[in-house]
Amino acid sequence: MSLTSQKLKAEKLENNSTKSDWVFGFGNGRADGHSGMRNLLGGKGANLAEMSNLGLPVPPGFTITTDVCAYYYDNSNSFPDDLSELVDQHLSLVEKSVGCIFGDSNNPLLVSVRSGSRASMPGMMDTVLNLGLNDKTVEGLATRSVDVRFAYDSYRRFIQMFGDVVLGIEHYLFEEALDNIKLDAGVTLDTELTADDMCLVVKKYKEIVLHELGEPFPQDPKKQLWLAIKAVFGSWMNQRAKTYRKLHDIPADWGTAVNIQAMVFGNMGEDCATGVAFTRDPSTGENIFYGEYLSNAQGEDVVAGIRTPQHLTISGKNQINSQGISMEESMPEVFKKLLDIRNILELHYKDMQDIEFTVQKEKLYILQTRSGKRTAAAAVRIAVEMVEEGVISKKEAIHRVEPSQLEQLLHPRLDPGSSRNVLTRGLPASPGAASGKIVFSADMAEDMSQKGEDVILVRIETSPEDIHGMHAARGILTTRGGMTSHAAVVARGMGRPCVVGATEVSIDYDKGVMTVGGRSFVSGDLVTIDGAEGELIEGSIPTVEPDLSGGFYLLMEWADSLRRMRVRANAETPTDAEIARKFGAEGIGLCRTEHMFFDPERIVAVRQMIMSDDETGRRRALDQILPYQRKDFVKLFEIMSGLPVTIRLLDPPLHEFLPHSDEEIYEVAKVSGKTAEEIREIATKLKESNPMLGHRGCRLGITYPEIYEMQAKAIFEACLIVSDKKESSVIPEIMIPLAATSVELEILKKKIDSIADAVFKKRKQTIKYTIGTMIELPRAALRADELAEEAEFFSFGTNDLTQTTFGISRDDAASFLPDYQHYGILNVDPFVTIDIDGVGELIRIGCERGREKRPEIKLGICGEHGGDPKSVSFCESIGLDYVSCSPYRVPIARLAAAQASSSE
Amino acid sequence: MSLTSQKLKAEKLENNSTKSDWVFGFGNGRADGHSGMRNLLGGKGANLAEMSNLGLPVPPGFTITTDVCAYYYDNSNSFPDDLSELVDQHLSLVEKSVGCIFGDSNNPLLVSVRSGSRASMPGMMDTVLNLGLNDKTVEGLATRSVDVRFAYDSYRRFIQMFGDVVLGIEHYLFEEALDNIKLDAGVTLDTELTADDMCLVVKKYKEIVLHELGEPFPQDPKKQLWLAIKAVFGSWMNQRAKTYRKLHDIPADWGTAVNIQAMVFGNMGEDCATGVAFTRDPSTGENIFYGEYLSNAQGEDVVAGIRTPQHLTISGKNQINSQGISMEESMPEVFKKLLDIRNILELHYKDMQDIEFTVQKEKLYILQTRSGKRTAAAAVRIAVEMVEEGVISKKEAIHRVEPSQLEQLLHPRLDPGSSRNVLTRGLPASPGAASGKIVFSADMAEDMSQKGEDVILVRIETSPEDIHGMHAARGILTTRGGMTSHAAVVARGMGRPCVVGATEVSIDYDKGVMTVGGRSFVSGDLVTIDGAEGELIEGSIPTVEPDLSGGFYLLMEWADSLRRMRVRANAETPTDAEIARKFGAEGIGLCRTEHMFFDPERIVAVRQMIMSDDETGRRRALDQILPYQRKDFVKLFEIMSGLPVTIRLLDPPLHEFLPHSDEEIYEVAKVSGKTAEEIREIATKLKESNPMLGHRGCRLGITYPEIYEMQAKAIFEACLIVSDKKESSVIPEIMIPLAATSVELEILKKKIDSIADAVFKKRKQTIKYTIGTMIELPRAALRADELAEEAEFFSFGTNDLTQTTFGISRDDAASFLPDYQHYGILNVDPFVTIDIDGVGELIRIGCERGREKRPEIKLGICGEHGGDPKSVSFCESIGLDYVSCSPYRVPIARLAAAQASSSE
Repeated sequence: MSLTSQKLKAEKLENNSTKSDWVFGFGNGRADGHSGMRNLLGGKGANLAEMSNLGLPVPPGFTITTDVCAYYYDNSNSFPDDLSELVDQHLSLVEKSVGCIFGDSNNPLLVSVRSGSRASMPGMMDTVLNLGLNDKTVEGLATRSVDVRFAYDSYRRFIQMFGDVVLGIEHYLFEEALDNIKLDAGVTLDTELTADDMCLVVKKYKEIVLHELGEPFPQDPKKQLWLAIKAVFGSWMNQRAKTYRKLHDIPADWGTAVNIQAMVFGNMGEDCATGVAFTRDPSTGENIFYGEYLSNAQGEDVVAGIRTPQHLTISGKNQINSQGISMEESMPEVFKKLLDIRNILELHYKDMQDIEFTVQKEKLYILQTRSGKRTAAAAVRIAVEMVEEGVISKKEAIHRVEPSQLEQLLHPRLDPGSSRNVLTRGLPASPGAASGKIVFSADMAEDMSQKGEDVILVRIETSPEDIHGMHAARGILTTRGGMTSHAAVVARGMGRPCVVGATEVSIDYDKGVMTVGGRSFVSGDLVTIDGAEGELIEGSIPTVEPDLSGGFYLLMEWADSLRRMRVRANAETPTDAEIARKFGAEGIGLCRTEHMFFDPERIVAVRQMIMSDDETGRRRALDQILPYQRKDFVKLFEIMSGLPVTIRLLDPPLHEFLPHSDEEIYEVAKVSGKTAEEIREIATKLKESNPMLGHRGCRLGITYPEIYEMQAKAIFEACLIVSDKKESSVIPEIMIPLAATSVELEILKKKIDSIADAVFKKRKQTIKYTIGTMIELPRAALRADELAEEAEFFSFGTNDLTQTTFGISRDDAASFLPDYQHYGILNVDPFVTIDIDGVGELIRIGCERGREKRPEIKLGICGEHGGDPKSVSFCESIGLDYVSCSPYRVPIARLAAAQASSSE
Repeated sequence: MSLTSQKLKAEKLENNSTKSDWVFGFGNGRADGHSGMRNLLGGKGANLAEMSNLGLPVPPGFTITTDVCAYYYDNSNSFPDDLSELVDQHLSLVEKSVGCIFGDSNNPLLVSVRSGSRASMPGMMDTVLNLGLNDKTVEGLATRSVDVRFAYDSYRRFIQMFGDVVLGIEHYLFEEALDNIKLDAGVTLDTELTADDMCLVVKKYKEIVLHELGEPFPQDPKKQLWLAIKAVFGSWMNQRAKTYRKLHDIPADWGTAVNIQAMVFGNMGEDCATGVAFTRDPSTGENIFYGEYLSNAQGEDVVAGIRTPQHLTISGKNQINSQGISMEESMPEVFKKLLDIRNILELHYKDMQDIEFTVQKEKLYILQTRSGKRTAAAAVRIAVEMVEEGVISKKEAIHRVEPSQLEQLLHPRLDPGSSRNVLTRGLPASPGAASGKIVFSADMAEDMSQKGEDVILVRIETSPEDIHGMHAARGILTTRGGMTSHAAVVARGMGRPCVVGATEVSIDYDKGVMTVGGRSFVSGDLVTIDGAEGELIEGSIPTVEPDLSGGFYLLMEWADSLRRMRVRANAETPTDAEIARKFGAEGIGLCRTEHMFFDPERIVAVRQMIMSDDETGRRRALDQILPYQRKDFVKLFEIMSGLPVTIRLLDPPLHEFLPHSDEEIYEVAKVSGKTAEEIREIATKLKESNPMLGHRGCRLGITYPEIYEMQAKAIFEACLIVSDKKESSVIPEIMIPLAATSVELEILKKKIDSIADAVFKKRKQTIKYTIGTMIELPRAALRADELAEEAEFFSFGTNDLTQTTFGISRDDAASFLPDYQHYGILNVDPFVTIDIDGVGELIRIGCERGREKRPEIKLGICGEHGGDPKSVSFCESIGLDYVSCSPYRVPIARLAAAQASSSE
């Protein structure tokens, strides 16, 4: 079947009609097509038809359909016989509507030519503006606009654009010529060139075309038009477009349409203008008409910044005490029409619109309308108010706010008004902004913060023993590591702004100096970090505190009523647990018990345990830690009363707890009865080449069963203590990390069960608990059926699963991930958004096989991805029961989960 | 359907007959059943029938079938009505045959009772011997054997065994009683007890039974028999048996049979004897009758070592100048029968047999025959000679040698006659044995070996820069690391004996001391390592050099003709490549180019490259390395002329090449124009937390394209140089390591192709080459379809794939893998044999998806598993094209591949 006949058939089915003309007109408040005809008219053509049908004054024009494209390729690059006539007919309709004539030297009609396929597709010919200009019509344009320079500037731009995309002339030739003329004129900016200079540029450009093409620049507007149409169709099959289609699974037979539209000008006198309007205030969301305009100007003039645009409304003008004249005053009639259009558009699109308009000789034209970009606060307010106004449903409202945008609302940010000298950029690891004095150690951070100083902790990388310093600091900067490095994960959990992997910064701890971009900063120098942007900024910059509106809470409530998945938090400290609960967490999905080991009160006992020669010594040391762990769990259970708390047994390799400084070593030596030399020897023995793949997780539980025994005992005792108090109910879930085989689980589950039995027997009381595992190794996902024989729940540890599946250490990735994103090898950082094709497949396999063996198995995710909207959406698609993320990301996850479960 | 009816139906189908008696007799050269009735008679019963049908003088007996077991469970633990009568009938047949009467006090028949199910199954009741003994018959036995002590010892053993497994009395009660009597008698060994003592033991034992059971030990032999039969059936459903069946997927309805067989005695006078015979010499394989016997003795006497057994044959006796009397001389008639049986058995089983026999009053009984254990040399000789004798086919011959046994033949081993003081054990990383002086550094190893000393290199772990020292050493010992640690892999490649992960050894490099088991050894002390056993041995021990027989080469030839998969070697030096080719490698499956970077002549340039601030600097340094690489490749291509050579581009992270000593740093500083301080700073920056998951493999190729460009250039130039020489043909396969996405391959393939184009253009000559990738990350296996769009071959890098799939670092695994094997979490070291369930599934997925996209894709494996027979068999099962392994393992892989492709 030929391309044409296939397409015709598809089109007929789609439109349920036999109509299949080659050309569809639009403008003057009506159109031949409509928004449902995207396949035939392309996205752009359908939108233009849509706006026209709404009665908006769109500059008139017409769309040559994708059927023509198919015909073109099916018939050796020729057009249907009747196309030329149809184009002429539509062109004359446009002429009539605008009151100008295509090719007329006095009052020339100029048009734009744009491609437009069903899906937006880079790599194709984009736009030719001002088509119709030639040596004659340029004079007409000059007269009409009373601006010779403008006319010739338009002409030379047209030649350049047409020469490049239609005639295929290397664009650097035009740039060289322009540069030469600027040199001759002794100017550096294009805007400094005079009208005469522009005439000269046009002359040079035409010479280039003649030289390159062997024939002069086409002067016949009709010829220009047909060349442009052919160029659009031709670009459908160029290499870049083909590659793009291949990568995005777009069939070649979709074809492209061509949109031809009258140019309108806002610079033809004082009865002309150009501007941009928002149907609501894009920064606050307030329901007021908001925008700016410039009279007698083109869009470019706004960009060039030579003249200051004025407010559209009197109230807008008054708000900033502007002396200018608002459009409401200068063009009251036109303004009224614009105000009407504002209402039409909001009602039609049911969203705040960003409208581009031009007034040509008192006639208003709407060039474009689209959903307007807005701040997070505005997004929330608009969504909530539109529900209250009855414009959209609650479900629609929750889809109007980008979950990740909420970060803006939850953290302090830099005062947008202040200027910033950015020293370098790293990865935006934890949002929020903070200023403070540089410190290079966790202890120093704590000391200075206790003295009331704001500090920024600057480290090559952080480790669990820096946690007190991270807590004391206002923000954290590291020079190594990726989005899930220790610093990033912990900072997000604490809600501290954090920039990681700032590779251009070098740190000399001994000298207490940080060097970046050839400048040195010492301890105590002021810097600011913007964790949302990943910036390190010189000096101190004022910040704006977050202020959560009532609308925010309302929107969250709606989200909660719509979502299927539960949202939990990763938290271990009472502070974090309380924040999490405040943000709506429905339990703890990951309590990392090792974070409790670093407390100064217990770290010595932990180290003593590691240094013991035998089990007896280890048990003695663990006995000292037990009461602390129990107390920790009691607090957590109380805060999370009635909600599940997933406690992960000790996970990191023991060497993470080793003493480093001489003082620490001496202290451990003292309590353990060993020499400092012996302590150092044991430390060396414990060192690992690849700790991530080392002696950690349940491997510790197998080789040193007494550790997990102590932890299990602390958990069960805490359960009973809390459940004794009235009104507190405990739902403990004990999680075994890093399992790769079912036998590991079998052995450890037996051990934990026997501890529970012993504790329950002693206290003559029992409590329900479950035992599950983290799926964080590819093997665990593949053998999930086997693991599910033992595990009552799975929590996908996507950080480690990403590290192992990809073979990428999150701590070392900073050295190549930027290049990987630059070359398009990775579209997203797999530590930020789940790699659905690889890691995602393992998660899917894990879920399927787990459910096969144990249909009621509880499935969740506790990696950092739990707070990433795209990943949350993936979790919904495979039917997980919950996601768990840092406390500060809980609202994001709640919204994302609601969007995911109410999509379509 | 009931158990019985199900089984009956199955049995009918199997035997194609309706016969289904409850009891089957055997003995006296005939049997009711045969070897095909395994399901009905169990394994043991079928074997006894088989031997009887062969005409062998098996002690007579009968088998109660598995149908009875099914009946028993289907009918509330009762027996078929006619069973008792059938048992009596068969018992009297046995009585007649042996000439003794069951329960007769003068001439008692004693029997053994054994379970026997279709599959061998631990956890069930095994054996009760001497059933039929009681206070009366024991006297008959005493008279008959003329040995009162023996009779009462047999009786007390019977009570103990019967009490434990049939009556369910705790066996420690019997042991305590025996210990007390020994204490009273003032002896320590059971053998020191007199006949009177034994009578006392019997008395005590009977008291225990009475006390525990509330009734006396059953004196009625019939009652004993029926209790034992019930115990066998009961043990089919005990907890251990159930668990075992569950783990091994054995259906409960298979049931067990019960075998009842006459006891025969070799200790009833000088016309009695017991012995063991091999149909051929198990240590040399020579086709002679070989064995030992003891007259007037039981099997136990041989084990107890009180009397020295004599040779069976005169020639055997003469060979060792023994003064004893051979069986050939002492019992010529019986010996003749045994000789006949030797021939019958070899012809029937077509393999060397290990035969247990007893002579009771000049009557020969065969108790058991099975394939005999043998040395590697014997295995090869027997297999080859049996083919020459026309007994077995070539295909059968190659299945007669355990591939891993060949290791014994290929490496020197310790003189079996010498005694060894084993200091500690580590992992047996590379077979062979060597003695030498301890050295603690690679440089020292080289120095001393140049002075003609044999040295053993002792290191905590090794790294690529130790390679010259490993080469110079006779053997390598490390205290860390697993079976695929650097030391293990390199040592195997070089054929050096190596023990790794000897965790009990601590090394102090500064002091030059190694401590093990409380003893210290300094540099220069003599030690021996046995790489096949993983032993570190004190002092120097003589070794036996390997001597490959003609039979070995013949067997290999047959193997080659039978196998489907190709076998290649992992090699990069000319020496290794030559060894590989000598051992029959059909190409190189993995040439690790980084090994070529450590040569002293080039390491400075390599370091200069790493230290360069920019690409220009790096290119300058790489230009110096290029000629060396080219030369390396020329040599390899020449050695492997006509065979494919897979060259892996640079894989390890750059920090592996960094200078360490001050001297090295100074040297690099000099050539790179940097200060030593700057060199150290760069080194610190390059350090990685988890280098295995770091900036390595194709990630280097992406971020520093100039490195792969240099390597590609060297390869293509070498190709042209070699192909210019007549008679040399080059088949280069360029392998990109550590790919996780197709875009990585796309980018690098383009780069390599363009280098090829440039080289070919310049030399006006082209050569065919292919580009492929290593599959060593779970993501790569999962996305193999995508990778196959670019890659023309896949080589599964199972070392790294195991590390990532399991999340186990091979360098750090020694700290927990032993515990993991101890607890049965891992049955095999996954770095030795592919973990088929996890890693294997990824390989299978990788193959499937790769072939889906590119059906002709070449698939191989180049991890250490390529030389492991079980893994080779897995590779065959998924249809890989080749395996690649260390040169010394090539013969093993050839044999294993032949076995795998000719199995069934």
